[in-house]
Amino acid sequence: MRLARVTKDGNIGLAALAGGKVTIAYGDAIADLDAHIAAGTLAEAGAKAAAGEAVDEGSLTFLSPLVRPSKIICLGLNYRDHAEEAGLGIPEFPVLFARFPSSLIGHGAPIILPKVSSQLDWEAELVAVLSKGGKNIAEADALSHVAGYSAFNDGSIRDYQMRTPQWTAGKNFDDTGAFGPWLVTPDELPAGAAGLKIECRVNGQVMQSSNTDKLIFNVASTISLLSTFMTLEAGDVLVMGTPGGIGLARNPPVFMKAGDVCEVEIEGIGLLSNPIVAE
Amino acid sequence: MRLARVTKDGNIGLAALAGGKVTIAYGDAIADLDAHIAAGTLAEAGAKAAAGEAVDEGSLTFLSPLVRPSKIICLGLNYRDHAEEAGLGIPEFPVLFARFPSSLIGHGAPIILPKVSSQLDWEAELVAVLSKGGKNIAEADALSHVAGYSAFNDGSIRDYQMRTPQWTAGKNFDDTGAFGPWLVTPDELPAGAAGLKIECRVNGQVMQSSNTDKLIFNVASTISLLSTFMTLEAGDVLVMGTPGGIGLARNPPVFMKAGDVCEVEIEGIGLLSNPIVAE
Repeated sequence: MRLARVTKDGNIGLAALAGGKVTIAYGDAIADLDAHIAAGTLAEAGAKAAAGEAVDEGSLTFLSPLVRPSKIICLGLNYRDHAEEAGLGIPEFPVLFARFPSSLIGHGAPIILPKVSSQLDWEAELVAVLSKGGKNIAEADALSHVAGYSAFNDGSIRDYQMRTPQWTAGKNFDDTGAFGPWLVTPDELPAGAAGLKIECRVNGQVMQSSNTDKLIFNVASTISLLSTFMTLEAGDVLVMGTPGGIGLARNPPVFMKAGDVCEVEIEGIGLLSNPIVAE
Repeated sequence: MRLARVTKDGNIGLAALAGGKVTIAYGDAIADLDAHIAAGTLAEAGAKAAAGEAVDEGSLTFLSPLVRPSKIICLGLNYRDHAEEAGLGIPEFPVLFARFPSSLIGHGAPIILPKVSSQLDWEAELVAVLSKGGKNIAEADALSHVAGYSAFNDGSIRDYQMRTPQWTAGKNFDDTGAFGPWLVTPDELPAGAAGLKIECRVNGQVMQSSNTDKLIFNVASTISLLSTFMTLEAGDVLVMGTPGGIGLARNPPVFMKAGDVCEVEIEGIGLLSNPIVAE
């Protein structure tokens, strides 16, 4: 299944994409992916969306698939070439930071370049959303805890990120965490969403191009490692880190400006496109 | 008002403390402080608790006041003497990291010393819980956004905290974030909970002793600064940082061990006491 929280003509609903055709079931309850994942009713909700009204994908406004995850856990430096360009060494343990739900937007929504900074950078990332939680989850069992995969643009305000020893501020500006368009269930993808090309383009120019095979901590090992010390929960969102090619590490640095369009594309998962708009 | 989520004889409820007497109103709905804060019904809930059954405080089991805040934003290095002992300089902007709700426990519950570490450290902190959110909140108006204050023990697993450039793992072990016992409404305290003695004791020995006047970024300036870049929401929890005297900075370092009792006391707010228990 490929599912998305959307609005059409102002009405919220759950959209399903299958065989190139998009259908929608309307209503707050059916669109509430956080609730479906928590209740274990994602398959039933998806079936209702698949049996819904046929619509043009272009008529939909995409929203962030999830809006109230208890955790949004982001991995930093999780591709070797990015860890090298950041000059921070290859991690021997996942480098973790948090996003808050207030920073999330959907496919097509503007990423906001804030007034206080000119250093808005892109980061193409794979997302895994958990279907069930747990503690001390074995790596061999970890992928059975995944509800679906998606794409993410971890839009980063670099001067705020680097202003203190912790990156949290620069990773949590409103309207910087683009998520979607589709939540893709694991049956549609290789195990762990491994071996998928991941790319970031700004105005069509390729800025990052890598493969999810190059994750230092892959989805299964990340779930297993995190669960050694924290209880994971259904609906938790893992944002798996970005490959080399960020704007900050270029010489000279390159940042996004109003009018740019930033695309994150992951093979088999989808294309997440967002315009950059000045605050 | 002084309100707490509690259980008594296995039944959940909302307790109120006034004039040295504790009363309780039972039920999931009345005990749901997250919901009351989101709905703006904290005063009504408190009135029901105040009119409830008189009980001995000693018969209550305290729970974390909030269980599903959208954000738990923690400030690092927010007292000058702690920033100095950490050797990281005096912040010119709040140093932010996140806790996830899965790490929270209540007053009296065990703080768990995990098998994988022996470096469990204390951190006495003031908490402010927001009653309403917003963006670009003026500092002069910021304290009108506070629902209440409480005490926090930001129990830290130091080797995991320092294992990567980001502190998130060491700040998010299960059963390390002690919160409570009471959420104290602002009318019971000085503006911004300023000028209050804050102390941490381990087995009765004073380990930290300071005053909330010494916060580098106080509650009002923190709310205002955060709201310049992120939308704050009702129920968001601000954990305001710890004064000097942590175990890691001692020579030799001192950590807590199973059997210890750690107390955080803030003048006018309450005493948060938790035993240390091995995993």
